[in-house]
Amino acid sequence: DTSIVTKAKISCKNGIKVTDRKDQTFESRISTTNHPLSRRLFKIMLRKKTNLCVAADVATSQQLLSLADQLGPHICLLKTHVDLMSDFTLDTTQELKELAEKHNFLLFEDRKFGDIGNTVAKQYSGGAHKVVEWAHLVTAHALPGPGVIEGLASAAQDQERGCVLVSQMSSVGALTSNEYVNGCSRLAENHTYFVVGFVSQSSVSGDSRFILFTPGVQLEKSVDGLGQQYVTPRAAVLERGADIIIVGRGITQASDPVATAITYKHQAFSAYEERVAGGTS
Amino acid sequence: DTSIVTKAKISCKNGIKVTDRKDQTFESRISTTNHPLSRRLFKIMLRKKTNLCVAADVATSQQLLSLADQLGPHICLLKTHVDLMSDFTLDTTQELKELAEKHNFLLFEDRKFGDIGNTVAKQYSGGAHKVVEWAHLVTAHALPGPGVIEGLASAAQDQERGCVLVSQMSSVGALTSNEYVNGCSRLAENHTYFVVGFVSQSSVSGDSRFILFTPGVQLEKSVDGLGQQYVTPRAAVLERGADIIIVGRGITQASDPVATAITYKHQAFSAYEERVAGGTS
Repeated sequence: DTSIVTKAKISCKNGIKVTDRKDQTFESRISTTNHPLSRRLFKIMLRKKTNLCVAADVATSQQLLSLADQLGPHICLLKTHVDLMSDFTLDTTQELKELAEKHNFLLFEDRKFGDIGNTVAKQYSGGAHKVVEWAHLVTAHALPGPGVIEGLASAAQDQERGCVLVSQMSSVGALTSNEYVNGCSRLAENHTYFVVGFVSQSSVSGDSRFILFTPGVQLEKSVDGLGQQYVTPRAAVLERGADIIIVGRGITQASDPVATAITYKHQAFSAYEERVAGGTS
Repeated sequence: DTSIVTKAKISCKNGIKVTDRKDQTFESRISTTNHPLSRRLFKIMLRKKTNLCVAADVATSQQLLSLADQLGPHICLLKTHVDLMSDFTLDTTQELKELAEKHNFLLFEDRKFGDIGNTVAKQYSGGAHKVVEWAHLVTAHALPGPGVIEGLASAAQDQERGCVLVSQMSSVGALTSNEYVNGCSRLAENHTYFVVGFVSQSSVSGDSRFILFTPGVQLEKSVDGLGQQYVTPRAAVLERGADIIIVGRGITQASDPVATAITYKHQAFSAYEERVAGGTS
């Protein structure tokens, strides 16, 4: 039953009729967002017909680059955890950047920055990983307040960079209360020059400028041994309001990662098309 | 006026009279905590008469090792951000471990782990930094729920390791609400085999098993350009209930870091002695 998502949901905000994010096409959202990376991401999704982000949680550069090259044609975004790799060097990121250009996807380091502004600015630009030099997007926890966003933005300088706030987490017993989610939304609204959206498990924002990224997606519902909970791609997009689904082990540990990625891509993108088909734009 | 802290504060919990953490000596707390690292830390503090933790947020291994050797005699704990160092290798941590033994302090990597259990387990044990191999303590955000603690503990295996939950942050506009603080406390109480205490700005727990670490401490009250707020060592211990004060730029950027560390150490340890002088144990 998709009637809940296909009927037009017009809400009234400040006396102006606003169409909910979920009912708007990515095409129409290109003109309403004011972040250049969001526009670029919408264009990639439309051109490649994919709203799939693969989480490449691998231990070596070779595995990362091989996944990026194999799955590149089917994804809009590659999510990394470079701090899991024992052999990481800046050569790895150079090759990664070339693969991202070749296959037209963006790079998304899931660092979950969560410190005061002065510290995250140095973590983002410095150290062994120099994340700001190669990752278009990074995740951050809003817990420290606006300083975390301002610190990251100060380190990004003139580069086309943005961050995604972790608004809700998919793990059992997460402390991301409604109050916390609202705090994240307020911070995002006050920092649209740097925040492109949210990592969330439900439609935490109807604001069409923000992109919703939903992790914890697998073809079958399940739970892992350390509290991670999963939903299907279709449920993520139609019920939880995901714009982009994030899939890790479901693809990277599949016997045929490419075929599996294609299955996820089709399921998630048709769910998106179904969602906006009944919308107003 | 220290009367608020020197009068005995006996609270009644489950019908049993419980003395508040702040009124108990470190000596008496050695026998009430059940974490071996907490006991070790209390013993170090008593032997060296210091409850000072220095935050060494430096860019090179040479700076880190030099600070550790210079300040080692005056600290109980060295807090690091190894992801800020461009030239980090495992040789650095080997030298760091030797300095920690020479001067009798513990190592505390302020990684602020904040991901699901499966990911933090790999971030803690793997990557370039192999934090679990050298850091006695690490910080974690409780935001992802119990999985973050269980993931870290699973990676620590039989090594004497523990984590400190970031319960409150010192930055302007932090989203660490009372509800969040209570969530951290509940998680800590359910995981005393791994959680040694809290990073906080106030006395978030009266439970004498937990050690309170308070950052944002400088000899003069101030605010930095990215939202970090400071209190004095005396206010941190007497008003905010800190067991251990964490001092970064106030010492590391002083013209004479050693002399400055000694000033902080004396102020913070005498504040602790004053705090417990009126206590009941």
